[in-house]
Amino acid sequence: MELLAEHKSFGGVVRYCRHPSQSCNAPMRFAVYLPPQATAGPVPVLYYLAGLTCTEETFMIKAGAQRYAAEHGILLVAPDTSPRHTGIPGEDDDWDFGSGAGFYLDASAAPWSAHYRMYSYVTDELPALVAEHFPADPVRQSIFGHSMGGHGALVCALKNPGRYRSVSAFAPIGAPMHSPWGEKAFSGYLGADRDAWRAWDASELVRGTQLPTPILIDQGTADQFLETQLKPERFEAACQAAGQALILRRQPGYDHSYYFIASFMEEHMRFHVEHLTA
Amino acid sequence: MELLAEHKSFGGVVRYCRHPSQSCNAPMRFAVYLPPQATAGPVPVLYYLAGLTCTEETFMIKAGAQRYAAEHGILLVAPDTSPRHTGIPGEDDDWDFGSGAGFYLDASAAPWSAHYRMYSYVTDELPALVAEHFPADPVRQSIFGHSMGGHGALVCALKNPGRYRSVSAFAPIGAPMHSPWGEKAFSGYLGADRDAWRAWDASELVRGTQLPTPILIDQGTADQFLETQLKPERFEAACQAAGQALILRRQPGYDHSYYFIASFMEEHMRFHVEHLTA
Repeated sequence: MELLAEHKSFGGVVRYCRHPSQSCNAPMRFAVYLPPQATAGPVPVLYYLAGLTCTEETFMIKAGAQRYAAEHGILLVAPDTSPRHTGIPGEDDDWDFGSGAGFYLDASAAPWSAHYRMYSYVTDELPALVAEHFPADPVRQSIFGHSMGGHGALVCALKNPGRYRSVSAFAPIGAPMHSPWGEKAFSGYLGADRDAWRAWDASELVRGTQLPTPILIDQGTADQFLETQLKPERFEAACQAAGQALILRRQPGYDHSYYFIASFMEEHMRFHVEHLTA
Repeated sequence: MELLAEHKSFGGVVRYCRHPSQSCNAPMRFAVYLPPQATAGPVPVLYYLAGLTCTEETFMIKAGAQRYAAEHGILLVAPDTSPRHTGIPGEDDDWDFGSGAGFYLDASAAPWSAHYRMYSYVTDELPALVAEHFPADPVRQSIFGHSMGGHGALVCALKNPGRYRSVSAFAPIGAPMHSPWGEKAFSGYLGADRDAWRAWDASELVRGTQLPTPILIDQGTADQFLETQLKPERFEAACQAAGQALILRRQPGYDHSYYFIASFMEEHMRFHVEHLTA
């Protein structure tokens, strides 16, 4: 593992790392924030999955989470949103597919299946790497994210009940099988068989598995993608039908940006801290 | 004045605006944060001047100040760091001169003097515009900034004692006449006569004018520009010789980035709030 950069932040340190990923068969980048408490021993870990076009830097630069992570002693981990420079033709052609748009699934359709395995990366390889290199308590981890990454966090939690102490999302894609972003991604990464898509759609997964803790979602009502792409009412209905506890808060006037995310970061951090330190 | 974008943030709103500037004889952009309290009446104003290569967006995206501005009811204003697209040959050639590097002075040397008049823009034109369009209390204003903009804040305050209730800086250029960045900027914007430079160097200005309130400066000890460009000890010595109260804090391990700025934003905001609401 290679240390690319580090910056002292709120008494702790932000580190940018690169390593050869087995899951993605490519180099991967991620950012980590070590709170001051990490010098004294293992601390809980909170993963953040970013949205379309973002990188491992976005969260650390824009979300303002370090302040709260330093206050509560939480290690933050933010991976890049896809492998990059894999050599797959057309990888960089679209902003909503390929690089920057890995969708946190394991692709099953060629040529993407050779590299685009972000689900395995995020749920298995990265936690093992974090546990090896940083003072992380592997049994206390939670996950959250934004948009594509908010949905990714829901999928990671729902496919692994008990693995994460808590899950939350900012403006997640609620049901990607019914979203143009999701349909494009699933068609490309998974192929034409829509039945195979169900294993990667949170609104489908929640029908089969419920989590022991409530899911927290914040959604801005002025979000430019609310009606066309996000459709939180679909995930809400699926949770209701399945008996999954959900705290879905519609926040008046907020849009899809990190101005929105930063505004509610403190409350999401408190939500996770509560479960991570219970 | 044209509204380019707005984003709800911490109960208030970030707005990006463009307007034709008389001082700069060019369109100028700035960002403003209106805290929730601004809907009820005039609030104090805090100006932030960014550093080399930054724009009016940098502070609003990276510094994390909105949270504290919302808490204390402070209107934030962040101008761009220079005019842009003026047509001056070579304007975009260097990252440390021309566009993105206006140095918050009034250029006196051609061709820059036709447009690069950021000092007049920041101290006169912009406050008048802000007072006209936003619920700003014009008698309660303070100023701060980073690097080139930290020095700019010091110059704006020292050239107008009593105008700003308080001034602070993150890693300011301490004495631009003795800094490669400053010497390049002053040579280009002001010409070869070093005596004329004294009117735009904070370490020179403080010899002639002192401010009624202490100046607050935070400086990271791991700042990559500390010894070559910033030289806080020169400004410190000038303040000491002149009897200007200065709180210069050397922060161990912090670098020149917004990770550093965000870490101490709360303390700078409290410092200004104390003076703005006294």
